[in-house]
Amino acid sequence: MSADLTQLVTSLAQRARVAALVLATTPTAAKNAALAKLADLIDASHAPLLAANARDLASPEAAALSPAARDRLTLNAARLKHLAESVREVAALPDAVGDVLEDFTRPNGLHIRKLRVPIGVIGIIYEARPNVTIDCAVLCLKSGNACILRGGKECFYTNTALVELIRRALAETAASPSVALAKEGRLPVDAVQLVPTTDRAALTALLKLDTLIHCLIPRGGESLIRFVAENSTIPVIKHYRGVCFVYVDAAADLAMAEAITVNAKASRPSACNAAEQLLIHRTVAEKFLPAVARALVAKKVSLRCDAASAALLAAAKIPYSAATDADYTTEFLDYIIAIRVVDSLDDAIATINRDSSNHSDAIVTADATAARRFLAEVDSATVYWNASTRFTDGFEFGYGAEIGISTDRLHARGPMGLRELCTHKFVIEGTGQVRA
Amino acid sequence: MSADLTQLVTSLAQRARVAALVLATTPTAAKNAALAKLADLIDASHAPLLAANARDLASPEAAALSPAARDRLTLNAARLKHLAESVREVAALPDAVGDVLEDFTRPNGLHIRKLRVPIGVIGIIYEARPNVTIDCAVLCLKSGNACILRGGKECFYTNTALVELIRRALAETAASPSVALAKEGRLPVDAVQLVPTTDRAALTALLKLDTLIHCLIPRGGESLIRFVAENSTIPVIKHYRGVCFVYVDAAADLAMAEAITVNAKASRPSACNAAEQLLIHRTVAEKFLPAVARALVAKKVSLRCDAASAALLAAAKIPYSAATDADYTTEFLDYIIAIRVVDSLDDAIATINRDSSNHSDAIVTADATAARRFLAEVDSATVYWNASTRFTDGFEFGYGAEIGISTDRLHARGPMGLRELCTHKFVIEGTGQVRA
Repeated sequence: MSADLTQLVTSLAQRARVAALVLATTPTAAKNAALAKLADLIDASHAPLLAANARDLASPEAAALSPAARDRLTLNAARLKHLAESVREVAALPDAVGDVLEDFTRPNGLHIRKLRVPIGVIGIIYEARPNVTIDCAVLCLKSGNACILRGGKECFYTNTALVELIRRALAETAASPSVALAKEGRLPVDAVQLVPTTDRAALTALLKLDTLIHCLIPRGGESLIRFVAENSTIPVIKHYRGVCFVYVDAAADLAMAEAITVNAKASRPSACNAAEQLLIHRTVAEKFLPAVARALVAKKVSLRCDAASAALLAAAKIPYSAATDADYTTEFLDYIIAIRVVDSLDDAIATINRDSSNHSDAIVTADATAARRFLAEVDSATVYWNASTRFTDGFEFGYGAEIGISTDRLHARGPMGLRELCTHKFVIEGTGQVRA
Repeated sequence: MSADLTQLVTSLAQRARVAALVLATTPTAAKNAALAKLADLIDASHAPLLAANARDLASPEAAALSPAARDRLTLNAARLKHLAESVREVAALPDAVGDVLEDFTRPNGLHIRKLRVPIGVIGIIYEARPNVTIDCAVLCLKSGNACILRGGKECFYTNTALVELIRRALAETAASPSVALAKEGRLPVDAVQLVPTTDRAALTALLKLDTLIHCLIPRGGESLIRFVAENSTIPVIKHYRGVCFVYVDAAADLAMAEAITVNAKASRPSACNAAEQLLIHRTVAEKFLPAVARALVAKKVSLRCDAASAALLAAAKIPYSAATDADYTTEFLDYIIAIRVVDSLDDAIATINRDSSNHSDAIVTADATAARRFLAEVDSATVYWNASTRFTDGFEFGYGAEIGISTDRLHARGPMGLRELCTHKFVIEGTGQVRA
């Protein structure tokens, strides 16, 4: 059985590799045509997609989901319309493939160019949400990569239906008459494949195919990501969620600090760029804390406080609870914030470098020297001066659709879009040069 | 025992993390001063270094080494002089840290900069050669990274003596009066640490410290690299050796093809960018093969041939042996080349994409259309048109000293120097912006 599954995923990966080689030289226009076709197919296929989704929702796995998870699994006409629109948005993005990253000529006449090219074959391991299937497949396709999708059990029928649509879009898209595509005349359907079983042994086998799959992107909870990182011999791009900090400095504009804190916490608490932690410089705590606490409580945010902040809130008769040690490193993803009073900028920086997830951290201050130290010394993917952490997002940066936000340091850090789904190659032209 | 070793390497990594945070904001001048000091210390310490090396050479492990491996382990005055010189060369390279990779302002006024910063803590896992200790420590230091070195048993005393010199150089270098360094006044000695045991359990424990170590670079044979890739939960940058191809096209200038083939194979067969494989288009095989074969044989290269090339060599009375299937994917690192006749450019590209290690592959042709297809469709880190594969090298590209050549696709591909030892961070300045 396990040998069969190994053979199954190996055969999938071999087909993906062949498709990837074709896709790597597929012109932008052909990729965009496939995406446009896919968007139209989604628009025209509401009935079968909703039927497949209903089958998933009726499964025992779906019955075990929390109401929030069940909601994320559920498709409806509005969500399908939005999904088609998101495909069109990716089609409209510029193609990163072929970008000239460097171009120079050596003294010996060798002309060296460093060009952006697709990574090759990308495995996406994810959990329930069906929009991940489309988002990931579409970003991989646009960036010239073949992908192997391995979604959750709860979403199997929906994913199967969606991947069928993508493969139809590929099969129905005439390839431009580039030489590499001439033989088939159509885009390779194996550019997008779904692992046709949710057996865990198939995933384990997939994680070892390091000669065929070039990169894995796990998306989901920390236990899934950790399982992939621990069991894979393929390089993994991980994107964890965030334990983000707002630090209100001694020299902060307190009205600005309040607006940024409330926005960072309460505008969308389930986002990875939402703040979970508030640090307040001791000299402004007495003035700032009651005000920001009232504003947060008005947004239904619970406050978990250290002793110093608790004393101030008790005096101001504002409800709070005592923070545990674990609260200081927790991603609540909820209307909860942990609050600490710090003695200095040094203390704030050290606290963040110890407790944050190095995702997005902000300082609010009018003191440029303090801000520059914070920006230089806080060791996080994105650091802010006088702005909300909620801006860490590919769209907000102007980069377009993202496949995730990396808190790793290799290859990608911060928002990951089409460029991060690419690698480069060196293309060197000579006139017979040999090395001395 | 194993718990003790886990504690030992954890404590090493914690110290490295603290040192890395200081090093990340250490000015270039201070880093260069430490490197200059190190070079001087190496020059002044021949006697103790050679004594430590003699102790290694007298060990049972060294007695078991091949003459070539024993030679690589051996230091002498000339090699130490060269080592000090290589440190000065790295000091002279431009600092990659702080490079502005992007700089733009969003419509809402957020000023976003993407800056090059050190990765953080890098683990280097390597085998015998003592120059690797200096090369890696120096490149990490220059790029602002703390490193943890885990060298081979055979070189333990030499490595210990070299790392002591590096730490002395750090301790004796006054830090510039930057704020972050003000407390200590000296560069942090824990920026460079050697694992003080060669017990394999310490290595295994190290490979799991993914919250403290940001990146591993294994250097050595494939079994070491594979051990690290299979057992690590830390991202790994691998640099394998090369199975490189030269393809002589139907439209090749045959004199140029001969010069390139001989250079790619015989100028330094032990290099990863040396050619191991020769493909010849059928239409020029009869004319080209006897000529190139005589030139290769004159350089003492053995020829391992497919049936078609064997027949031509037999007719020309040139010595050869029949190739096995394994020869077509082998990195000989020796005066051996495998030779095949192919029917077409398509055949050559497909053969390379199947059998090469995607390191460096070359086409020799006067046909620009064929060359462009080869450059676009061969899926390797470096592709050449009318030049020897031997140019894949950081110095030859003008990039300076390299820590290796990556055949992976994430983060680094091709020569890896100071820039590839860096990541980036987004530094964002606002005026109170919150997200709608």
